[in-house]
Amino acid sequence: MNMPKIEPRLPSGFLELLPQDQIIFNMMLETIRKTYERFGFAPIETPAIEFTEVLLTKSGGETEKQVYRLDKSGDDLSLHFDLTVPLARYVAEHYAELTFPFRRYQMQKVWRGERKQRGRFREFYQCDIDVIGTTNVLVDAEIPSVIYEVFRNLGFENFTIRINNRKILNGLMEYLEISSVSREVLRAIDKLDKQGMERVTEEIEALGISADKIKKILDFVQIKGSDKEIISQLRSLGIDSLLFENGIEELNKVSESIAMLGVPRKCYGIDLAIARGLDYYTGTVYETVLNDYPEVGSVCSGGRFDNLAEYYTDKKLPGVGISIGLTRLFYKLKEAGLIKSERATLSKVLIAQVDDKFMREGLAVATQLRKNEINTEIYFDSEKISKQFKYADRLKIPFVIIIGELEMKEKKVSLKIMSTGKQEMVSVDEAIKIIQAVK
Amino acid sequence: MNMPKIEPRLPSGFLELLPQDQIIFNMMLETIRKTYERFGFAPIETPAIEFTEVLLTKSGGETEKQVYRLDKSGDDLSLHFDLTVPLARYVAEHYAELTFPFRRYQMQKVWRGERKQRGRFREFYQCDIDVIGTTNVLVDAEIPSVIYEVFRNLGFENFTIRINNRKILNGLMEYLEISSVSREVLRAIDKLDKQGMERVTEEIEALGISADKIKKILDFVQIKGSDKEIISQLRSLGIDSLLFENGIEELNKVSESIAMLGVPRKCYGIDLAIARGLDYYTGTVYETVLNDYPEVGSVCSGGRFDNLAEYYTDKKLPGVGISIGLTRLFYKLKEAGLIKSERATLSKVLIAQVDDKFMREGLAVATQLRKNEINTEIYFDSEKISKQFKYADRLKIPFVIIIGELEMKEKKVSLKIMSTGKQEMVSVDEAIKIIQAVK
Repeated sequence: MNMPKIEPRLPSGFLELLPQDQIIFNMMLETIRKTYERFGFAPIETPAIEFTEVLLTKSGGETEKQVYRLDKSGDDLSLHFDLTVPLARYVAEHYAELTFPFRRYQMQKVWRGERKQRGRFREFYQCDIDVIGTTNVLVDAEIPSVIYEVFRNLGFENFTIRINNRKILNGLMEYLEISSVSREVLRAIDKLDKQGMERVTEEIEALGISADKIKKILDFVQIKGSDKEIISQLRSLGIDSLLFENGIEELNKVSESIAMLGVPRKCYGIDLAIARGLDYYTGTVYETVLNDYPEVGSVCSGGRFDNLAEYYTDKKLPGVGISIGLTRLFYKLKEAGLIKSERATLSKVLIAQVDDKFMREGLAVATQLRKNEINTEIYFDSEKISKQFKYADRLKIPFVIIIGELEMKEKKVSLKIMSTGKQEMVSVDEAIKIIQAVK
Repeated sequence: MNMPKIEPRLPSGFLELLPQDQIIFNMMLETIRKTYERFGFAPIETPAIEFTEVLLTKSGGETEKQVYRLDKSGDDLSLHFDLTVPLARYVAEHYAELTFPFRRYQMQKVWRGERKQRGRFREFYQCDIDVIGTTNVLVDAEIPSVIYEVFRNLGFENFTIRINNRKILNGLMEYLEISSVSREVLRAIDKLDKQGMERVTEEIEALGISADKIKKILDFVQIKGSDKEIISQLRSLGIDSLLFENGIEELNKVSESIAMLGVPRKCYGIDLAIARGLDYYTGTVYETVLNDYPEVGSVCSGGRFDNLAEYYTDKKLPGVGISIGLTRLFYKLKEAGLIKSERATLSKVLIAQVDDKFMREGLAVATQLRKNEINTEIYFDSEKISKQFKYADRLKIPFVIIIGELEMKEKKVSLKIMSTGKQEMVSVDEAIKIIQAVK
């Protein structure tokens, strides 16, 4: 048919991968999943589509502008824009059927109609864990140990989990009598890394805060040292606020317990400038940076909240959790040349076809390899053997098995190792051993 | 806060599972994935959102009514309603970067605004494989061998893969000079199982086809016997149509090769009534039924197509593939009482807490278990031990480890086996052996 064609293309802001990259992306997803399960998080999944009213509990704001609404007569529905709001709805809806503390992981795509910008995605994976129904700050300490294991298992060595406690910052602002603009101040502090001292100072000045108080805030968020030193400095500041003191005690306990949970000191530390200004956290907060790639920003963030599902239920549900934005992390790693895509398939063996009359034997060998858990594909088309080798080479299939007249007579197969080009005639059992020895 | 609450609820037509069911659903997904990989299919994933114009190449019809369109100023976007159209777009878009024959699997949610009906879902998983870029009917024979392995690995014994070839039916209609209404006739035949002979006869009559021809069609689709018998009956009908004869040859080769690929005869067979009337297939077609649950209908369907991406490219891309609708399959199995949900978590061990002062030891044991690939969670809250046992019992965690004064002194742990209630004091190494011995 010679119809006019529709251009095959995607809207911008959507990441789509070739198989060689998809294989690596899926391995990363699987690594995160296995680590979450290792720490006793159970899987749930929620529908991508929910009632708009349920998702947008607070109307107005950035979120409402970004949400993808569906255009259907009848129910007002939208795509979820994170996994926390659906979790809140889930826990409230299924409260009686769940056991608390409820430890769940959830790894799904979410959608946001972000404005177009390089490296910003409108569809991306979030990999979340949360523990719901406990106020125990030991759980706040367990979360970094999960983050540590995840990033180690993903192959990272040099990263830092930064921790802070919102009570300390809020206590300070209470003490300075500027609580009424605390959200705005937190948001400004959050930009310290990116925008520098001068612009942040201007932003806080614009809120009508005196130079004296601004100095106090900025001196405060720049307190550096070991965790012990920071805690002792904080204690010596003489800030008379119960909230502030309570925050220090929590932060101290979290910092000490993280070490007890096996995370090396070099991989975590208190950073008083971590504010997570846009979020609803009420206690411990986390950010994670890859020290060799600070420009990537935080690759895993989260914190503690007093009340997860207040919009849906009177049940008070405190908890703590984190989220890894995998799509963005993958994109940034790829951009930095850290994603080494090789195989374009997961097949370890290609059964080549020399002649139709040996097909039966080839199929039997394929079945035998598969029974031995070896991913095996068959080249069905009658093509020149050189073309079949080229196919294996392009997909980076490590082994090709050839069965011809001679092999049939000897009851053997020829096994070609694609990386070296070496080819030898062996029994099927020997071939299986050689193949299984290669990861 | 005592605000008015929003009712936590989902729109109808969306399946959401508790962790105990989600665990089983995920195992099924993983089984399908591993089997697809075993046969050399490579993973891809496409965005849920595409240009409406790209998805709805043919305007009008059922699909257009069911598609979820997004309501955003700017681009006209929709949610994909299957994985075949996105595959066509993907292959056309990335043609130069792919290697053919392109063997891909894709397991994602799709969305359709179906009318409300029990057991109909508006969001559901499709698990697809396709081989693109080959006309070789041996590949048509390989597909049932993948279906066979998938359903065996999912634990089914008694199922039948029904095969047919559209060329035979189309050839018959050519011969009867009713090709102009062949789509409508195929659609009617497709309903034979559900609606019975009488209603289907009426439906074909309404197309203005003579009683004589209707009898020929209905006699034809009811030809029964072994595959060999059916083929020989078809050959003896004396229908003078090249298309018909070509269809018989293909069907015969596919039927013979499926056996060669290791699928037992009892698990597949020719069924001339399989029409897949609503689809775009041009050769082999498949349906799969669970013989003990015929009311479930086909759990895996597909077929061969001449040209996958004709709307996007002049490149001719023949191929063959199938799709498993996992959400519906899971729902039906659950309804039939075949889903045995037990564990509400994947944790194998709960580290109980007797006293805060033994926490350090408990954390160290947890780390050691996890290093041995044992999913382990810690009970952090200081609760009565009976409450902690109850927690383990409700989640069906098989082992609880307790560390108290005595255990500390003996450098051992107490291991409680929840299924028997038996508790014994053992070394951590012994505990690991006992735990690992239980699947």
